[in-house]
Amino acid sequence: MSAEIICVGTELLLGNILNSNAQFLAQQLAMLGIPHYHQTVVGDNRERLKQVIEIAGARSQILIFTGGLGPTPDDLTTETIAEFFGVPLVERSEVLEDIASKYAQRGRIMTPSNRKQALIPEGAEVLPNPAGTAPGIIWQPHPNLTILTFPGVPGEMRRMWQDTAIPYLKSIGWGKQIIYSRMLRFWGIPESALAEKVVTFFDLPNPTVAPYAGQGEVKLRISALASSPTEAKELINPVEEKLRQIGGLDCYGADDDTIASVVGKLLLNAGATLSVAESCTGGGLGQMLTTIAGSSNYFVGGIISYDNQVKVSLLGVNPEDLAQHGAVSAVVAQQMAKGVQKLLGTSWALSITGIAGPGGGTDAKPVGLVYIGLAAPDKNTESFKYQLGSQQERSLIRQMSACQALDRLRRKLL
Amino acid sequence: MSAEIICVGTELLLGNILNSNAQFLAQQLAMLGIPHYHQTVVGDNRERLKQVIEIAGARSQILIFTGGLGPTPDDLTTETIAEFFGVPLVERSEVLEDIASKYAQRGRIMTPSNRKQALIPEGAEVLPNPAGTAPGIIWQPHPNLTILTFPGVPGEMRRMWQDTAIPYLKSIGWGKQIIYSRMLRFWGIPESALAEKVVTFFDLPNPTVAPYAGQGEVKLRISALASSPTEAKELINPVEEKLRQIGGLDCYGADDDTIASVVGKLLLNAGATLSVAESCTGGGLGQMLTTIAGSSNYFVGGIISYDNQVKVSLLGVNPEDLAQHGAVSAVVAQQMAKGVQKLLGTSWALSITGIAGPGGGTDAKPVGLVYIGLAAPDKNTESFKYQLGSQQERSLIRQMSACQALDRLRRKLL
Repeated sequence: MSAEIICVGTELLLGNILNSNAQFLAQQLAMLGIPHYHQTVVGDNRERLKQVIEIAGARSQILIFTGGLGPTPDDLTTETIAEFFGVPLVERSEVLEDIASKYAQRGRIMTPSNRKQALIPEGAEVLPNPAGTAPGIIWQPHPNLTILTFPGVPGEMRRMWQDTAIPYLKSIGWGKQIIYSRMLRFWGIPESALAEKVVTFFDLPNPTVAPYAGQGEVKLRISALASSPTEAKELINPVEEKLRQIGGLDCYGADDDTIASVVGKLLLNAGATLSVAESCTGGGLGQMLTTIAGSSNYFVGGIISYDNQVKVSLLGVNPEDLAQHGAVSAVVAQQMAKGVQKLLGTSWALSITGIAGPGGGTDAKPVGLVYIGLAAPDKNTESFKYQLGSQQERSLIRQMSACQALDRLRRKLL
Repeated sequence: MSAEIICVGTELLLGNILNSNAQFLAQQLAMLGIPHYHQTVVGDNRERLKQVIEIAGARSQILIFTGGLGPTPDDLTTETIAEFFGVPLVERSEVLEDIASKYAQRGRIMTPSNRKQALIPEGAEVLPNPAGTAPGIIWQPHPNLTILTFPGVPGEMRRMWQDTAIPYLKSIGWGKQIIYSRMLRFWGIPESALAEKVVTFFDLPNPTVAPYAGQGEVKLRISALASSPTEAKELINPVEEKLRQIGGLDCYGADDDTIASVVGKLLLNAGATLSVAESCTGGGLGQMLTTIAGSSNYFVGGIISYDNQVKVSLLGVNPEDLAQHGAVSAVVAQQMAKGVQKLLGTSWALSITGIAGPGGGTDAKPVGLVYIGLAAPDKNTESFKYQLGSQQERSLIRQMSACQALDRLRRKLL
C-alpha cells in the first residue's frame, strides 16, 4: 500500500513555479506513516494525464492530485479522472451554492465558467475548500484505489488537507505507525560547527538525527518511528534534551517556533513591551513581530525612519552624529533605539540601520553592513555590528538583519 | 522528441527538501526549446528506479537524472542505470585522479567510498563536476535515448548544466527553436472573470496564452516558440498589446514587476513621496515598498501604530472617533493616513487598519475586515473597505491588505 503525488500543471513543466505542494504533501504522508515512493508532474494535457493515472494506479493505492481544478478550459484534472474511469460528472448543487455565496461575500457575481467547478464524478465525495472556490474530491473509483484532489494554490490545498484529508485518512486506518519528528532550531552557529558538536547522534537508529541548513539558521531533525505520538515523544525527549544542552543559548526553539514567537513569549512572561525603529528593513522587523497572533500584548509599534530626516525629527537622532558617522553607524543605531523607546514608552526597543544593497556600498561601509541598536528598560543602550556579506541579496540581508535584532533581544531576555 | 526530469532521493519523498532542481531544469529545457512533459521523483531504491527508467525511456528520448551520485551505499543512480541497460561499470582513472586532487586541495584524504564515484558505464562520457567530487555522465545506451546525470546538490548541478550540458545539447541540434514567455500580471479581477474576457486567446497556436491564479493576483502567460528571442518578442508583442487593452487598469505589469515596483516607478515619475501608517500589517506595507532597491527616492517612512495609543499620540487620531467607531473603521483609516502624511510631510500617504485574525473578529467586524486609507497631495482623504474572507489565514490577510493598499495608490497615480 502506498500513496503517489501527482501534480498537474504546465507552469511546473515550464519551471514558472516551485513545487512546494509536493514537499508539503510528502511531509504529511511521512507523518501519517503512509508509504510514498513516487511523485509525478504532468502538464495540463488530457492524454498524458490519463497515461499518468494508468501508471500510478497500477503501482499505488492512493493518488493525490494537486492542480487543474480551476474554472478555465485548461483546468481538466477532475474531468480527465472521471473520463479515465468512465464515470459521468454531475453538477452538485451544494457546491454551486457555496461558490455563489463566496462570490457574493466578496461583492462579486459568479461567472458561468465557475459552474464547471461544481462538476464532480458521480459517486465521489466533495472535499470542501473553505479558502477558495475550487473544491476537491475524495473518491474510490474501485475498492483498491482512493483518489484525492486539491487545487494548486498552496494555501487552499494545505487547509483542505488539514481540515478534511487527514481525518479521512485516519478514519480508514492510517496514522497507526507514524513517523514523528521534532525540529530543533539554532541561531548563531554554522551548520558544520553544530554538526561537529553532535556528530555521534547521527548514527542513532531510532530516533534518527539529521542536520539541515536554512537561511541563517541551522536545524536538527529528530525523527522517531512509533505507534503513537506519545511513544514517539518518549523516544525523542531524552535525545532532544541532550541536544538542547549541547546547543545552549544557540538553540532558540523547536518545530513551529520562530525567533519572533520565542521573543514574544519572553516579553509576555516578563510583562515587557517592545517598539522598533527601522531603516534598511523598512518595516520588516515590525512585520516579523506581528506575524504572531496576540503580538499586540507586547508589541506597541514603531517608526520606519527610511529617510534620515525622520531619524532626526521623530527619533531625535543628533544631526551632527548623523553627518559625522553616517546613518549606518553604532551611534545612530543606539540613538534610534533610545528615540523610539522614549517616543512610544516601551520597556525595550530595537533599531536596525544598514546597507541592504545592491547599491550604496563603499569600501568603508560595504553592502551587508548592519548595526542593531538595543535599548533596555534601565535606559542603557548597546549596538551590535554585523557584516552579512557584500555578495548577499538585498532580501536576504534585510531578513537576516531583522532576525539578528530579534536574536539579540532574545539573548538579553534569557 | 521530449526530455524527462527524474529526481532520485528519499529526502524528496520525505519532504525534507524542496525540489528546486526540477524547477531549474524545467526552465532550462524551456529556454532551449526542448519539449518536456513529465517529471518523476523516486527514492534511493534499485527496483523502483529501474521501473521508472523503463517508463520514462518508453515515452521520452532525453532522460535527465539528478541525485544519487554520492559516495554512500544509498547513492545508486549510476549503477542502476548501467544495470538496467546491461552494461558494465568501468573505473575511470582521470575521474579518480580528479577526486583525489580535490580532496588534497581541501587538506583531506580521499576515503575508499569515493572510488565508487569514478565508476562510469562503459561507453559513457564523463560530465565533469568542477564544484564537487561526483561527476555525471552523458550517455546514449541506444541511438534513440540520451541520458544525462547530475548530483543532487543544486550548486554543482547548475554549474555542470551550464558548463557542459548546454553546449552538448546545442551541439546535437537543440536551442535552435526556443520557448520565450512573457507573464502579464493583473490585480483586482478574479481569474474566471479575466479568463472570460480573453477566452478567444486560449486557442492561439503560437504564441499560446494561458491563465494562472496566484495569491490575489491573476497572470496570463504568453509563450512563443521561435528561433530567437527577437522573433519570439515579435510574435508576443501584438498579443500582449491586445491583452493589456482588454485588461485595462487591472493589468499592473509584466514578468518581474510587483505592485510595489510599479507604484515606485509611478511615484518616481511624478516626483512624489509616500509615507505609511500601519496597524494590522505591523510594518508589512513598508517592508513591501522597500523590497525595491532605490525606494528611498520616494518612500520616506512610516508609523507602525499597532497599539491604539500610538494612533492617537503620533498620528493624531481622534480618541472619540476611536471609541465610537473602533480602530478598524473608515474614519480611523482616513485619520491615520492624514496623520502620517502631515507628520512626515509626504505628498501621498497610505494607511491600513484591519482584523488579521485568527482572534479579534466579531459579527459586525469579522476577521478579514480591512480599511485602507489614502491621503492625496491635495489633502483629500478617502477610505476603502475590504472583506478579505473570515476563513483566510492571518498571513494572507496581512499580505493582501498591503497589496490592496498599493493597488489603490497605483490606480490613483495612473
